[in-house]
Amino acid sequence: MARRPDRLSLGLFLFPAGHHIAAWRHPAANAGAGVDFGWYRDLAREAEAAAFDLIFIADGAGARSDDPEVLSRTAHSYVAQFEPVTLISALAAVTERIGLVFTQSSSFNEPFHVARKIASLDHLSGGRAGWNLVTSASDHEARNFNREAHFLHADRYARAEEFVDVVHKLWDSWDADAFLYDKEDGRFFDPAKRHVTDHAGEFFKVQGPLNVPRPPQGRPVTVQAGASEAGRALAARTADLVFTAQQTLEEAQAFYADMNARAEAFGRAPGSIRILPGLFPVVAPSRDAAQEKLATLQELIHPAIGLDLLTGGWMREALAKADPDGPPPDLPFAGNGSQSRVQLLFDKARREGLSLRELYLKVAGARGHWQVVGTPEDIADAIQERFEGRGADGFNIMPPLMPEGLRDFTTLVVPELRRRGLFRDGYDTTTLRGHLGLAALS
Amino acid sequence: MARRPDRLSLGLFLFPAGHHIAAWRHPAANAGAGVDFGWYRDLAREAEAAAFDLIFIADGAGARSDDPEVLSRTAHSYVAQFEPVTLISALAAVTERIGLVFTQSSSFNEPFHVARKIASLDHLSGGRAGWNLVTSASDHEARNFNREAHFLHADRYARAEEFVDVVHKLWDSWDADAFLYDKEDGRFFDPAKRHVTDHAGEFFKVQGPLNVPRPPQGRPVTVQAGASEAGRALAARTADLVFTAQQTLEEAQAFYADMNARAEAFGRAPGSIRILPGLFPVVAPSRDAAQEKLATLQELIHPAIGLDLLTGGWMREALAKADPDGPPPDLPFAGNGSQSRVQLLFDKARREGLSLRELYLKVAGARGHWQVVGTPEDIADAIQERFEGRGADGFNIMPPLMPEGLRDFTTLVVPELRRRGLFRDGYDTTTLRGHLGLAALS
Repeated sequence: MARRPDRLSLGLFLFPAGHHIAAWRHPAANAGAGVDFGWYRDLAREAEAAAFDLIFIADGAGARSDDPEVLSRTAHSYVAQFEPVTLISALAAVTERIGLVFTQSSSFNEPFHVARKIASLDHLSGGRAGWNLVTSASDHEARNFNREAHFLHADRYARAEEFVDVVHKLWDSWDADAFLYDKEDGRFFDPAKRHVTDHAGEFFKVQGPLNVPRPPQGRPVTVQAGASEAGRALAARTADLVFTAQQTLEEAQAFYADMNARAEAFGRAPGSIRILPGLFPVVAPSRDAAQEKLATLQELIHPAIGLDLLTGGWMREALAKADPDGPPPDLPFAGNGSQSRVQLLFDKARREGLSLRELYLKVAGARGHWQVVGTPEDIADAIQERFEGRGADGFNIMPPLMPEGLRDFTTLVVPELRRRGLFRDGYDTTTLRGHLGLAALS
Repeated sequence: MARRPDRLSLGLFLFPAGHHIAAWRHPAANAGAGVDFGWYRDLAREAEAAAFDLIFIADGAGARSDDPEVLSRTAHSYVAQFEPVTLISALAAVTERIGLVFTQSSSFNEPFHVARKIASLDHLSGGRAGWNLVTSASDHEARNFNREAHFLHADRYARAEEFVDVVHKLWDSWDADAFLYDKEDGRFFDPAKRHVTDHAGEFFKVQGPLNVPRPPQGRPVTVQAGASEAGRALAARTADLVFTAQQTLEEAQAFYADMNARAEAFGRAPGSIRILPGLFPVVAPSRDAAQEKLATLQELIHPAIGLDLLTGGWMREALAKADPDGPPPDLPFAGNGSQSRVQLLFDKARREGLSLRELYLKVAGARGHWQVVGTPEDIADAIQERFEGRGADGFNIMPPLMPEGLRDFTTLVVPELRRRGLFRDGYDTTTLRGHLGLAALS
């Protein structure tokens, strides 16, 4: 039976120049890393040398902003990156042990295609594939796929529920020993070990079977990141691994307990789901050096990007005219939900005496993820507290600047975690399910 | 301006155990090659060492037969193979110069996904990507994608015409110098060099732009294989490269002249399209040895497979009862098109005194492709005649058995072609467009 492993899991969230919103502007940054395969290969191998469980590739099937002024100033809008299936498959060929998790949206894909690609990647990689199911959030993506606007939230999740079931059924198309390759008798496979899918549901009709043999992992690892009620329900029923963004220990513990309880309520065995929050670590030998490292990046945030992150593009023209070193300007309050949140944010900043620039710097850097700034011991302390306090089974590491931030983590923090007995010294297993301590399937 | 190159092009049509229908049953065959990545890697590298223009991966998004008895006896039904995007991307990482052509159906895909994957592969591989557009022929595939039956032939091609236009427009989303990576000014790209696609047609609405920078080849190589009137029209208007199956020199010359004339009628420059027929070469130092090599494979064709190829599954039960060493049995003639073709085939075989087995052996081996059996000089003569006689710009090589058949070709035939000045000694260029002598695009 699956149970929570004694040691934590580590993922490397691959993002070209680094996770800080302005990383690409750093003097040491590789600004064109998004289509530099050697760059990705070296980062993946570095994570593998440190025995990370997995690399993780996020995705958006379309750029995230319509405003060319803002879009043209950020590397974080998926305008100049590899497509994830092609990238992860190429990385499979140049790595040996590390898990390979990539993102595919259930909203703008067909389950047969997705099931087939992941099963194929699992064969290519010897059992290292993982699928991060997202439902996609933007109308920009919808408009690349015959729609004016995205599906409503509830429809997205209803579709996702059925989508993941179809994918799982397709992976069960063949028994592990279905292919006989019996040359003498001329029998390629055993017809009795082939299972036609014959799915007919609300969103999908898929006959199957899948035309790929059973994946080495049985079922590759299913990953989700939804934090909404519908997202949690989907993850609790179907996911092996959940990525999440929690700021405080209390939030993390509450989410962890909730997800495990929900999974058990769906009849799943205790310990059959892994929770990996994102962690944006700024590491240096001293706390001052770490703060300085962060400040260097913070100074590179272009005002247009900082303001856009604050307000989501609302009042862009008025804000562009405001003095960034003065207090946040008065805004014409319009009563709308997101606008009223901006109003509250601005009111609070004025009370605290923050300038507009200080306000966006506070919000922008790690883009909502858990940020820890300090020495290797500080980072290890924070990680240990969350892991042992059952706020996480591990962390998806989001280095601010690549490769420096990854190297800081693998050379300074990982040894400290090992000294404490919190992280493996090397790989004990060959599959992603194995690394994560999830039950083997055949 | 593009013109026909002085030397011919060679592709390696990758098929796991080999192209002979019974290759997997050969004592030397790797019957499980379909999901053996090392196998594909070694074959691709061997073709690259011989300076082939490209490797080619066919596809079907579903198995080809509903009959488990027949299906379970053939390795040629795409039941146990890698999915092509994942496979070709992994191969990109372990090769340096060879072109990488893979298949994606316009019937069961979205143009945004396809354009993005190919553009991404072009970046991953440094300009070596090619897309083989197919419209898919089978209801089995349709039933994996929410349909009871496939689109009608005319609808498939109407959709394909629009599909390829959308893909080409998406590749033009960014100028080659659109990404500035200007750290000082904080400008990631130049908004003036971004082109929103805004396509709205009969089948597709795609806003774009593509979220991948302009591919290194400008436009990756577009490949088609349609032989019907609609297929030829589509290829002549949009393809850079056409795969085809012609048996005789006269057929090949007629097709070659027709396709070039059609391309020019669409306003394309002479020499802007390349024609590569499939070639199934059985090579040995002597003609007798070559014939023996073929006979060894022919003997491995299971009667159920041979009969199925003859009749497409019609009259399966009656044929199974017939004596394979007797004449083809009388069939209840039903007047239907494909059934009447079987009747004619059987009548002819009886007149020629062929047994049922002799008849299917004649048809089955190379599955309708041009088969040449003989010495290296014989193969080179046949190639030279077709190339110089303007029946082909090169050939897609389909070795009967892998790796032996590929090795026979690269070590025996390629040197002979080089002695005659018909094939390059090594790569002169780094992109697939370059290898093929197609006009560079930027």
